[in-house]
Amino acid sequence: MRRIVLGVLGLGNVGAGCLRLLADNRSAIEARLGATVVVKRVLVRDLQRAREIDVAPGLLTTDAAAILADPEIDVIVELIGGIEPARTYILDALAAGKQVVTANKAVLAERGAEIFAAAEKGGLGVFFEGSVAGGIPLLRSLREGLASDRIDGVCGILNGTANFILDAMSRRGLAYAEALRMAQEAGYAEADPTLDVGGGDAAHKLTLLAQVAFGERVDPAAILTEGIEAITSLDIRTADDLGYVIKSLAIAERGDGEDELENGGAPRLRVHPTLVPKDHVLAGVHGSYNACQVRSQGLGRSLYYGRGAGMMPTGVAVLSDIIEVARLLLARAPGDPLPAGARVQARACSPASLDELLHENYICVDAPNRSGVLGRVATCLGAHGVSIKYRHQDEPQGSDLVPLIMLTEPAREADMVAALADLRAFADLPNPPRRLRILSEPEDDG
Amino acid sequence: MRRIVLGVLGLGNVGAGCLRLLADNRSAIEARLGATVVVKRVLVRDLQRAREIDVAPGLLTTDAAAILADPEIDVIVELIGGIEPARTYILDALAAGKQVVTANKAVLAERGAEIFAAAEKGGLGVFFEGSVAGGIPLLRSLREGLASDRIDGVCGILNGTANFILDAMSRRGLAYAEALRMAQEAGYAEADPTLDVGGGDAAHKLTLLAQVAFGERVDPAAILTEGIEAITSLDIRTADDLGYVIKSLAIAERGDGEDELENGGAPRLRVHPTLVPKDHVLAGVHGSYNACQVRSQGLGRSLYYGRGAGMMPTGVAVLSDIIEVARLLLARAPGDPLPAGARVQARACSPASLDELLHENYICVDAPNRSGVLGRVATCLGAHGVSIKYRHQDEPQGSDLVPLIMLTEPAREADMVAALADLRAFADLPNPPRRLRILSEPEDDG
Repeated sequence: MRRIVLGVLGLGNVGAGCLRLLADNRSAIEARLGATVVVKRVLVRDLQRAREIDVAPGLLTTDAAAILADPEIDVIVELIGGIEPARTYILDALAAGKQVVTANKAVLAERGAEIFAAAEKGGLGVFFEGSVAGGIPLLRSLREGLASDRIDGVCGILNGTANFILDAMSRRGLAYAEALRMAQEAGYAEADPTLDVGGGDAAHKLTLLAQVAFGERVDPAAILTEGIEAITSLDIRTADDLGYVIKSLAIAERGDGEDELENGGAPRLRVHPTLVPKDHVLAGVHGSYNACQVRSQGLGRSLYYGRGAGMMPTGVAVLSDIIEVARLLLARAPGDPLPAGARVQARACSPASLDELLHENYICVDAPNRSGVLGRVATCLGAHGVSIKYRHQDEPQGSDLVPLIMLTEPAREADMVAALADLRAFADLPNPPRRLRILSEPEDDG
Repeated sequence: MRRIVLGVLGLGNVGAGCLRLLADNRSAIEARLGATVVVKRVLVRDLQRAREIDVAPGLLTTDAAAILADPEIDVIVELIGGIEPARTYILDALAAGKQVVTANKAVLAERGAEIFAAAEKGGLGVFFEGSVAGGIPLLRSLREGLASDRIDGVCGILNGTANFILDAMSRRGLAYAEALRMAQEAGYAEADPTLDVGGGDAAHKLTLLAQVAFGERVDPAAILTEGIEAITSLDIRTADDLGYVIKSLAIAERGDGEDELENGGAPRLRVHPTLVPKDHVLAGVHGSYNACQVRSQGLGRSLYYGRGAGMMPTGVAVLSDIIEVARLLLARAPGDPLPAGARVQARACSPASLDELLHENYICVDAPNRSGVLGRVATCLGAHGVSIKYRHQDEPQGSDLVPLIMLTEPAREADMVAALADLRAFADLPNPPRRLRILSEPEDDG
């Protein structure tokens, strides 16, 4: 029986999940492949540490170079995470002619240019299903299921921690700090939650999604990224009263400039908390679940939903890549390049301007309990062409500050940004106004 | 450049969508495959008929045998629908050593045993992504994305027409007959809607889903199948008041009998209208959309959502199969069998009994406007071990009949069936009681 030989880097959660799934389903996997999958070595930092999974001690090593240089190993499975040493290991693996499977979104988003260039040069594949939306077969659906389709946009809940926090605020009535603590106690949020709640993690994933969906690679630092840290219980309750739930969405849309390059121009990308109508399918995504809606020309709207992180879900995704690369290796002559369809080629580009985006907006201004603020706010918005379609202010109840809540008519993003900058300059507003965009989609009821 | 040669049977909606997608995306598809995809002949009934798509007249033929016998054709794409002559054409294609791609759920569900046996015998593939949930890459996700996982259950909205009708009743306040007429006018329902509203179409799809998910093939006639024809506006409104929407669900669960065969025993299958909690993700599936939730051991809950029918969505699915089979053909030596993973093997089995299923239930009895009915109904239910946890009856308003609405505690299916049979025997109840099951899922908020 033919053999596919793996070298695994890292035996944390995902590595352990992966090895467990491989052990539990070995006979089914090998029957499908018609080949044996052998884990030859596993890189760990500490040989003595207790593990979640039984691994033959002889498998473990602290010597990365020995794994990367082993001529018998076909595929390097990188599950260390972070930029270094993961980047160096991946580049070394590719230089040694090995295929790479990874769940590391940070290194692919931040250093994807050199990694994918090295893979392309060697005719090798870099597979990363586990790096976006965990176990949901999202990238595979875009690549295979929609292979003949043209993808126009993706819109997703890509960070389970942020969704867990917003969902706990919404469904349990918690304040942000309480919900964050609950997420930390449940193991969903790290001690420093910045990457999750600030949107940086979702921006990494959006970079990879845009690469697969549009063939365009953007620098995640160039993506408009707004976090959920400033969202208050009042925002959540008000959104609820108005028929919305607040979700942190990562959105990428294919560029539509006809005069631009053949793919239609640079995509528009953004990560920000958003008011989602309650009967929208994304509103039903609770807890730490992820979901991604895809718009494409043939299929229309489709959506993929499931666990976006965790030992077993990400293990399922990583193993689906291992099975795919094993199939490809078994089908080719040794040394041949992988077929082009298995390699993700992309050109580097800067994301398109968001200035012309149209959104309705939710605005909350903590207004001093004096008359005249509403009038001045409305005048300021109006001067930028932004119309108010709804406003609400409770009777003052002793406090000096009374929240003034407004919904706007659809407004240009550039106008909103300018209006908000002017509002922030109001001397008598102690806190910056909070603005959240409202999701709008063409009616599609059929 | 190598060539993959197709013979297409049928040029209706789906066939035209398929050819259009192939024409629109030809260069991208061929770049990915490294091969040319050639449509050599297209079978039609009438050479003169106007078409939705421009096809070179020389391609069209009314001679099926000539296509099926053409040694140059690698893949037969069957898009005729129905049992015959589709079955004969598929069997002839397999006998001639051709791969088969089809979107025909009826023929695969009803005659799958002989078709898959013939394919297995020839080492050939029968690909049918387009036959379940249209363009949603659902079967592919089960086969590839969850390749290393063990699937425990699927629960889906698999008939867009039934969902359109229930959604229109729910969101537009229409009566069943009005909603059906609207679906017919919109082109979603046929003049004879029986297969859609009666659940037969969903049962066909459930048979194919169970085959892919569990490797078990059941006769669709053996699936408990209840339609939506008896659902009233009162049921819809009451469900809404109680926090539910009514959806027609198709559900398959892996058998759990440990003493049974290696796959864990026969699966439990059923198609019936169901009360779904409003904040469940399936409750957000509107209009003619389809969705399928999958439970598996590694990934947990995942969900796939999109257009379940139509020219372009089904075209996308069929073309994804064509691309897959083309890849497989290009990777093997001519005449070699397809790899086992690309063939869907299943053993025939009878679905397991539903007797021990536990559901809460909604019951509506049109009760004569006399005292005593509630007591007798409750006594009857109680005699079968079914407890009422909620009941509601409006004040009589002149009518002879007053709907009596009850929710039960979780009850065994066998007990409910026996209790309902007894209730139907009550001499003074003019209409049979309506019973709908309530979806219950383990709490999973994480």
